Amino acid sequence: MKLLFIGDVVGAPGRAMLQEYLPLLKSRFQPDIVVVNGENAAGGRGITAEIARQFFEWGVHCITMGNHTWDNKAIFDFIDDEPRLLRPANYPPGTPGRGYAVVAAGGRELAVVNLMGRTFLPPLDCPFRTAQTLVDELRTRTPLILVDMHAEATSEKQAMAWFLDGKVSAVVGTHTHVQTADERILPGGTAYISDVGMTGPYDAILGMEREMVIKKFLTGLPVRFSVDEKGRKQLNAVFLELDDETGKARTIRRIRVDDDHLWSG
Amino acid sequence: MKLLFIGDVVGAPGRAMLQEYLPLLKSRFQPDIVVVNGENAAGGRGITAEIARQFFEWGVHCITMGNHTWDNKAIFDFIDDEPRLLRPANYPPGTPGRGYAVVAAGGRELAVVNLMGRTFLPPLDCPFRTAQTLVDELRTRTPLILVDMHAEATSEKQAMAWFLDGKVSAVVGTHTHVQTADERILPGGTAYISDVGMTGPYDAILGMEREMVIKKFLTGLPVRFSVDEKGRKQLNAVFLELDDETGKARTIRRIRVDDDHLWSG
Amino acid sequence: MKLLFIGDVVGAPGRAMLQEYLPLLKSRFQPDIVVVNGENAAGGRGITAEIARQFFEWGVHCITMGNHTWDNKAIFDFIDDEPRLLRPANYPPGTPGRGYAVVAAGGRELAVVNLMGRTFLPPLDCPFRTAQTLVDELRTRTPLILVDMHAEATSEKQAMAWFLDGKVSAVVGTHTHVQTADERILPGGTAYISDVGMTGPYDAILGMEREMVIKKFLTGLPVRFSVDEKGRKQLNAVFLELDDETGKARTIRRIRVDDDHLWSG
Amino acid sequence: MKLLFIGDVVGAPGRAMLQEYLPLLKSRFQPDIVVVNGENAAGGRGITAEIARQFFEWGVHCITMGNHTWDNKAIFDFIDDEPRLLRPANYPPGTPGRGYAVVAAGGRELAVVNLMGRTFLPPLDCPFRTAQTLVDELRTRTPLILVDMHAEATSEKQAMAWFLDGKVSAVVGTHTHVQTADERILPGGTAYISDVGMTGPYDAILGMEREMVIKKFLTGLPVRFSVDEKGRKQLNAVFLELDDETGKARTIRRIRVDDDHLWSG
Ligand SMILES: [Fe+2]
Ligand SMILES: [Fe+2]
Ligand SMILES: [Fe+2]
Ligand SMILES: [Fe+2]
Ligand SMILES: [Fe+2]
Ligand SMILES: [Fe+2]
Ligand SMILES: [Fe+2]
Ligand SMILES: [Fe+2]
Repeated sequence: MKLLFIGDVVGAPGRAMLQEYLPLLKSRFQPDIVVVNGENAAGGRGITAEIARQFFEWGVHCITMGNHTWDNKAIFDFIDDEPRLLRPANYPPGTPGRGYAVVAAGGRELAVVNLMGRTFLPPLDCPFRTAQTLVDELRTRTPLILVDMHAEATSEKQAMAWFLDGKVSAVVGTHTHVQTADERILPGGTAYISDVGMTGPYDAILGMEREMVIKKFLTGLPVRFSVDEKGRKQLNAVFLELDDETGKARTIRRIRVDDDHLWSG
Repeated sequence: MKLLFIGDVVGAPGRAMLQEYLPLLKSRFQPDIVVVNGENAAGGRGITAEIARQFFEWGVHCITMGNHTWDNKAIFDFIDDEPRLLRPANYPPGTPGRGYAVVAAGGRELAVVNLMGRTFLPPLDCPFRTAQTLVDELRTRTPLILVDMHAEATSEKQAMAWFLDGKVSAVVGTHTHVQTADERILPGGTAYISDVGMTGPYDAILGMEREMVIKKFLTGLPVRFSVDEKGRKQLNAVFLELDDETGKARTIRRIRVDDDHLWSG
Repeated sequence: MKLLFIGDVVGAPGRAMLQEYLPLLKSRFQPDIVVVNGENAAGGRGITAEIARQFFEWGVHCITMGNHTWDNKAIFDFIDDEPRLLRPANYPPGTPGRGYAVVAAGGRELAVVNLMGRTFLPPLDCPFRTAQTLVDELRTRTPLILVDMHAEATSEKQAMAWFLDGKVSAVVGTHTHVQTADERILPGGTAYISDVGMTGPYDAILGMEREMVIKKFLTGLPVRFSVDEKGRKQLNAVFLELDDETGKARTIRRIRVDDDHLWSG
Repeated sequence: MKLLFIGDVVGAPGRAMLQEYLPLLKSRFQPDIVVVNGENAAGGRGITAEIARQFFEWGVHCITMGNHTWDNKAIFDFIDDEPRLLRPANYPPGTPGRGYAVVAAGGRELAVVNLMGRTFLPPLDCPFRTAQTLVDELRTRTPLILVDMHAEATSEKQAMAWFLDGKVSAVVGTHTHVQTADERILPGGTAYISDVGMTGPYDAILGMEREMVIKKFLTGLPVRFSVDEKGRKQLNAVFLELDDETGKARTIRRIRVDDDHLWSG
């Protein structure tokens, strides 16, 4: 199975990049399944039903989220009816939505699990125990499992990857909005990257207009962050090839599309 | 001017990698100046006089530090006498040691500035105002300025780079121990990478034996982290070419040495 | 000199308590000067010009703030013109408003200093060095100095009090919204209490409707906190007597007004 | 049933205060059961088997702990064999020791539950859900339930008290080492105080020598905190009277023993 995972889509610039490049990426990599982190898709804060609908229309199979899941309150109206839109699985029992999905493609099934770290982030249920329970259950159904570990600390992301090594096909990190260069396949067969990076503004700070962010750091005063709508744009993703029988990863390849990096292809 | 910056050297494995690969990297890249982050050089915690001496003997010109600067108490005995060993400049006035150094090579001078972020890290003086003051002063002496921004949050690192864009030759991040893939030259001529990554154990978590780190996340109990002395090793660095007249960066190139990545060369 | 300091006034219930009880407290304690922390006065978030005007009309001489200073954006329009409204002094240079004021009463002058801690709070300039500089300067004018140390951690508040013992008349803590029972006069003559407590709703959580706060802890979902407008109310304050010559405190006395505590009198 | 709860005993000075005053407090208040928070009993860091044995010998029925539970590694050797020594119940399943105990006195049973907050503290399981499960179970056995909510944030402590109001006899907070003046009985019958305060050094910062703590705040450098062994001492506690039939609290009374406060009695 071939997978394309695209990192945090930020605002209108991120959506424009997704719309423009997804056809090219599909043409080039022929992924069976496309997963996108959409926690910043609506103006940098959450997602709307309309944006999710568009993503699916453009060929996305599953959307993962993170700490910004609930920023746009509209999500409470549709998340329970949209099994392809995930929020971190380690929210407490009773949380709207689902933390995993099983996506079918070409006669095989991929389980997608969304988790959130707790280091430098608000308290949640333990992502490690949640992962263990979910993965044990999902493996009775399919060996092909993709985990989006939405977290700040590299230590927690690496720990999750090693914890799940040999039990899932891939652990890909999101949240820092910066792609890391540590993609690899761990000894047990699990592909890993600490962060896939973001999709959206390129001359901005994590997608936000940089003047306001710098002002925040300099003054400590409240500032309103806005998605940089005018500057250049980027897309960050990873491409994965998995062994259908064993679920082990064969390839993990970073993809960067911006004016300073040649996108692989 | 050509620069080689090597990311957080962790313990004996990190020192072994530095000793083994520095000659190869010098041969290949011909750097005028080599800077190394050494905050984890002594068993993962700080640095000793003997280790610093070795680094200089192997051809390192300047050592930067970070939040682990003071972990090994021996540093208080020698930091004031070693102008090539830096601690973050935004420690309060009166802190032992220095936050910057000027290193001469081939008739030119490079100023090296060490800063530490405050997001998810203990309180310190404002790194932005410290940077501004120091950089304004150093630019009266040389346009060639390298900043090691030791910080956790990608937002704070990117903000520092954009804040200093056009005023320094490069802002390179350290601390997360994972190399990022976002190396670039900003419009004003400042080279940037969010994190250079670490040098030391490769099959470990930030350099530490992974069993203990995973146990910590699973149990919340205190565990003693030890540098993984047995597994495979990695080295992470960046190579920079700067324009001697303007101080602007011409090139920033990531270097990874590990079993999964070909080191550039 | 006699001082009355009233802790964080929260929303309309807090303002109603202030209006109702200030005359009684003035009648009973005959304070020369009344200082009120007003960071939550406007709906729990910041303060408005109109609310500040009312406070002064009711007999308040000086208003201190804290981490909620800027929640109500209107403050940027009037803080520079209102020397009796303070924000923490350890905001960076250039921040609107002032961090201290000198209030005259009966031929004597009281300096009021507002500081904010950094533990579990966003980065700011060092409150200890800010305090030292300000206090050294203010002592050339008057020995009567009151410090509102707005902070979360008891360690940081106690450290500030001991740091300033003998140099200021009193260090009173605010921010946690719960009055502490540790009022005392330190050996050097500085009166101290870790937290004065809040003024406003009594059957609420820090002044906010408790259902929403409990929901937040249980679910991790975003909830909108609202000031509890319906329930019973409380007022928390301290009364201080200072020696005009030496500036040393003679008395610190806690005041609680609620259905479970007799207000001292 | 009458209860005496004594707050965080810190080091040798705390133990000396406990030994000296427990007989007096028992004589004066005639408690059926004495509970002590012992997380700082051994040099400020954890507890030893010998110290626990002494406490029991002096008439303590149950010891609660907190974030310092595991500081003294010796605890791993005896916690599983000592049902009267509790650690927070919301540590993950499999953690050594127990999170609650049932103590018998005069034909009645008191359940003691130890919980830890997560705000400004490391991640743990949700204390609210843990409380709910435990309390529901314990109430089938006895209506007399005492909760030690070891937490930093006043919001989390108050939220727990209101969450459990009417279901437990009392929620008493520990951890900040400063007694709060907000003791009360909530409408449902649950006695509450945000923090009982500590037992040990009085002219210190949370029990530690103040010079070192101030140095830490001023310099950011590592300092070794030591229990202040020389200065004056304090004891902080609460006395509770519970209705044996309903489990509701009839009285909650603060006790402070120090040179500035008359101990109630
Ligand atoms: Fe995120
Ligand atoms: Fe994001
Ligand atoms: Fe490091
Ligand atoms: Fe570091
Ligand atoms: Fe407040
Ligand atoms: Fe506050
Ligand atoms: Fe504690
Ligand atoms: Fe404690």
